[in-house]
Amino acid sequence: MSALSFEILANDPAGFARRGRMQLPHGIVDTPVFMPVGTQATVKSMTPADLTDDIQASIILGNTYHLMLRPGADLVEKMGGLHKFMAWDRPILTDSGGFQVWSLGELRKIEEHGVRFRSHIDGAEVFLGPKESMQIQRQLGSDIVMAFDECTPYPATFEEANDSMQMSMRWAAECRDHLPVNSNQALFGIVQGGMYPELRLQSLQALSSIDFEGIAIGGLSVGEPKEDMIAMLDTLAPHLPADKPHYVMGVGTPDDLIEGIDRGIDMFDCVMPSRNARNGTLFTDHGKLNIKNLCHAEEEHPIMEGCTCYTCTHFSRAYLRHLYMAKEILSSRLNTLHNLHYYCALMQRARTAIEEGNWPEFRDQFLQHYRGRA
Amino acid sequence: MSALSFEILANDPAGFARRGRMQLPHGIVDTPVFMPVGTQATVKSMTPADLTDDIQASIILGNTYHLMLRPGADLVEKMGGLHKFMAWDRPILTDSGGFQVWSLGELRKIEEHGVRFRSHIDGAEVFLGPKESMQIQRQLGSDIVMAFDECTPYPATFEEANDSMQMSMRWAAECRDHLPVNSNQALFGIVQGGMYPELRLQSLQALSSIDFEGIAIGGLSVGEPKEDMIAMLDTLAPHLPADKPHYVMGVGTPDDLIEGIDRGIDMFDCVMPSRNARNGTLFTDHGKLNIKNLCHAEEEHPIMEGCTCYTCTHFSRAYLRHLYMAKEILSSRLNTLHNLHYYCALMQRARTAIEEGNWPEFRDQFLQHYRGRA
Repeated sequence: MSALSFEILANDPAGFARRGRMQLPHGIVDTPVFMPVGTQATVKSMTPADLTDDIQASIILGNTYHLMLRPGADLVEKMGGLHKFMAWDRPILTDSGGFQVWSLGELRKIEEHGVRFRSHIDGAEVFLGPKESMQIQRQLGSDIVMAFDECTPYPATFEEANDSMQMSMRWAAECRDHLPVNSNQALFGIVQGGMYPELRLQSLQALSSIDFEGIAIGGLSVGEPKEDMIAMLDTLAPHLPADKPHYVMGVGTPDDLIEGIDRGIDMFDCVMPSRNARNGTLFTDHGKLNIKNLCHAEEEHPIMEGCTCYTCTHFSRAYLRHLYMAKEILSSRLNTLHNLHYYCALMQRARTAIEEGNWPEFRDQFLQHYRGRA
Repeated sequence: MSALSFEILANDPAGFARRGRMQLPHGIVDTPVFMPVGTQATVKSMTPADLTDDIQASIILGNTYHLMLRPGADLVEKMGGLHKFMAWDRPILTDSGGFQVWSLGELRKIEEHGVRFRSHIDGAEVFLGPKESMQIQRQLGSDIVMAFDECTPYPATFEEANDSMQMSMRWAAECRDHLPVNSNQALFGIVQGGMYPELRLQSLQALSSIDFEGIAIGGLSVGEPKEDMIAMLDTLAPHLPADKPHYVMGVGTPDDLIEGIDRGIDMFDCVMPSRNARNGTLFTDHGKLNIKNLCHAEEEHPIMEGCTCYTCTHFSRAYLRHLYMAKEILSSRLNTLHNLHYYCALMQRARTAIEEGNWPEFRDQFLQHYRGRA
């Protein structure tokens, strides 16, 4: 029996947007959903209580690459798995480590069964491939395991993108072999193919011949123009399996999320809300603001009027600017809380809009406001 | 009418320890009490909700020196005062700035009506004396204002200590002139006199001729041997006015607090629990532990068995060590939460022991365990 069941509760009759629900070993995830990134067994500066009570996150993402190097998969397993280790009892998705290894650039060497690289922490040589990634993610005990793939660089020639995609598809099959369907962990395959629509569609077809519980789209938001990313989602949308969750990896800004939902995407993750928070960049319905700007120095209003997060219900922009200028830890914390709350609340608003049958209006109005055209 | 009323609810019949209650404009403070230090309008890494709900702090300390330089007293006043600015609705004590200015060393010049110094932030020349300190603390709106004094250096000759103390006593009278008894803010005088008992007693007598709502002991824990500090508290204890709260400034370790309570001290503040937390040093009934030590790498137990703080009820030492090694912000936060909870809970245990008439037993048992002799 599979570890994931997925049902569609509502569709936008005019398009691809859908409102769904996943049942996973550690709980229910309503989609579309944003997954805060918990790189090193912590969503930076947040406790599990913040994530559940204030941010209302239903699932978070963990990073195989970081955890395998520190504190190590053996230790996490010994401590009862990632959920127990970090005291998070809701679902976790772990990535495969492929993206981070790819980001190492010259420090890594690709072989037929994986990638050899040096740890960024202590320089130790490490090998990571489909077999190793499945083993590590099993030790971590995540609800959703991602297939090990290569993130095709951007730009890439057709041949490079094709070779890379073909290797990722061989690896995808290997991953399923090493992690057969079971009741504890679901496995998602990842569409690659660079910026070439025909390669992307071939990749999607190759994955459909393997029994994955969900389909992810990787290799986007890697430097290409935003129109190209959206065009690729347009290409894929009609072909994504309707009965499985669709996850676009590492995307993106609030408007990217809305564009993704409009193209049938159910799941998102991105470091942007948390990383930008630490740099003082805060998200609102009217776009981003930078809290360090002098215009906020005496501003009594919160980041965003009407926002129900702890930060906005307690603190002025003037106070948040003071914390940022004084390099206080609380600055990172309050900013992160707001940004993650904003992202998760935006997904709740999207779910409601789809349920209530007014997705197109919600989408258009949001994009107009967010992009400053209203 | 005074801004502070103080009543003694119980005394240790065999000594000086007492359990009291202060009523201040922003609420009740049960004593003995530990006041977490909120230097720059934030107790580092903590929200007001952490401080009230988990740590159960009833009063915190704010730093005049830091706040006057950044964001500035005018801004804090404009934002409705320090309470509103930092969203803390319980009592606040502000220090006078004297200690921080003293710490600047060669960057400051003492004059008859205060100290001229350069800001550590931007080098601007600033003058701070009794008049200015009272004005700034009025703008901040703290419940308890501290007199502006000079912290006598250690070591100091008798003459140096005498001159310094005499100046502080002149400044103390000036402070009361600038901040007469009123219903919004109480004012505490500060005993100085270095390590000379007769100067300390002279200082205490000088203060008793001025109508202060509380008496503080400054210039301790500045490098002298711990026995000397305790001996000075022994000297002062029989002479402290029984009907006013007694506050020993900048002290100390958990066992220092117990020794202080035993000598009639009601109020404490110290950066130690919060600063040490960020360096991975954690307090328990059996002394300090350093979370980065390898022995904690696979330790499933919490920092301290039986501790009811969020950190101890959710996380293993192994996880806390991982966060520390990975330089995660959450490390500072969870460690700070534990240490401040430990300090405030220790004060609650002391209050209960005095109330229940078993202070000597509690004191002896605690000190034995804490100092590793049991």
